Amino acid sequence: MVPPSVERRSERARRAILDAALELCQDQSFAGLTMEGIAKRAGVGKQTIYRWWPSKAAILLEALQERGGATLIFPDTGDIVADLRTQMTQVVRAFNDPMFAAYSRGLISAAQSDPEIAAAVVESIIRPRVDLCVDRLAKAQQAGDIHPDANLPDVVELLYAPLYYRLLLHTRPTTEAQVDAVLTMVFQGLRP
Amino acid sequence: MVPPSVERRSERARRAILDAALELCQDQSFAGLTMEGIAKRAGVGKQTIYRWWPSKAAILLEALQERGGATLIFPDTGDIVADLRTQMTQVVRAFNDPMFAAYSRGLISAAQSDPEIAAAVVESIIRPRVDLCVDRLAKAQQAGDIHPDANLPDVVELLYAPLYYRLLLHTRPTTEAQVDAVLTMVFQGLRP
Repeated sequence: MVPPSVERRSERARRAILDAALELCQDQSFAGLTMEGIAKRAGVGKQTIYRWWPSKAAILLEALQERGGATLIFPDTGDIVADLRTQMTQVVRAFNDPMFAAYSRGLISAAQSDPEIAAAVVESIIRPRVDLCVDRLAKAQQAGDIHPDANLPDVVELLYAPLYYRLLLHTRPTTEAQVDAVLTMVFQGLRP
Repeated sequence: MVPPSVERRSERARRAILDAALELCQDQSFAGLTMEGIAKRAGVGKQTIYRWWPSKAAILLEALQERGGATLIFPDTGDIVADLRTQMTQVVRAFNDPMFAAYSRGLISAAQSDPEIAAAVVESIIRPRVDLCVDRLAKAQQAGDIHPDANLPDVVELLYAPLYYRLLLHTRPTTEAQVDAVLTMVFQGLRP
């Protein structure tokens, strides 16, 4: 068993490393981040970092998962539109958190030229959230609130893709008004 | 006036440079691209490149615009869903062209840490296509095929965001079946 004092010390170092990576990711691009830089800023040795994480992408993924924790809560009040609004609003808040945004953009940017990072982003960030949303939509479908033919993973994409679109294409800021507009269009449909 | 032989020579050099940039972008990441590398592969001097383009991003933007020309044709047969299907299918084809995909991913990736590239992508790639789509949707709205309250720029985002989502998040390949699924959901709405 690890004595409590060592655990506390490890947790302190772990937090310092995650915070240092977060801060550096805001100051500079993901491409400019190095394990050396993170170690220096966190005041730890480089070996300490490599003991816990194989790469800077792995550190960023962990920090992103911690910081994006609120987006892993999917409410079920029985009102599917209200519950989606609650959850999507959490995503909008995360995308408007400068640190979370810098992180997300850095990781997704790195994923474009590194298939391992791309797979890790899908597995640890995207997939768990899609699965939660599909579960909630399935209940709504069983309750008769969603068309029985709707393919639920496609619905998740339709709802969340416009948020990622603004985050990554830098066309307009993601807002709560965007969430309302998407929900209205998707549930009512475009036909008069 | 420039004599025709010089024009022809310039056009040959211009094409060689665009092609070299395209090929290199497929072989390596956007971050690894250099003006030197492009000049060497194209068999021209670096000054020739700098005479026409200020940066590698500018070269990629021009190549992307040339290669994505088919996505700038927006048909008007009077059937809005059929016309959207035609145009969105062109986008799917472009995203499945390995060179176009590597280019798009490289540029959007670079846009995450360079606001000038981000602005150039919006101005030269995204905005002209959004405007064309809004024009076509406006005619459909006037014809009574789209709900009068629908905000057309929001509709464009809803239709195209799922294609960019798969391109950039690497969850699933973009397909023509995806286009049909998006159009059905968006026009019918999710309610039973």
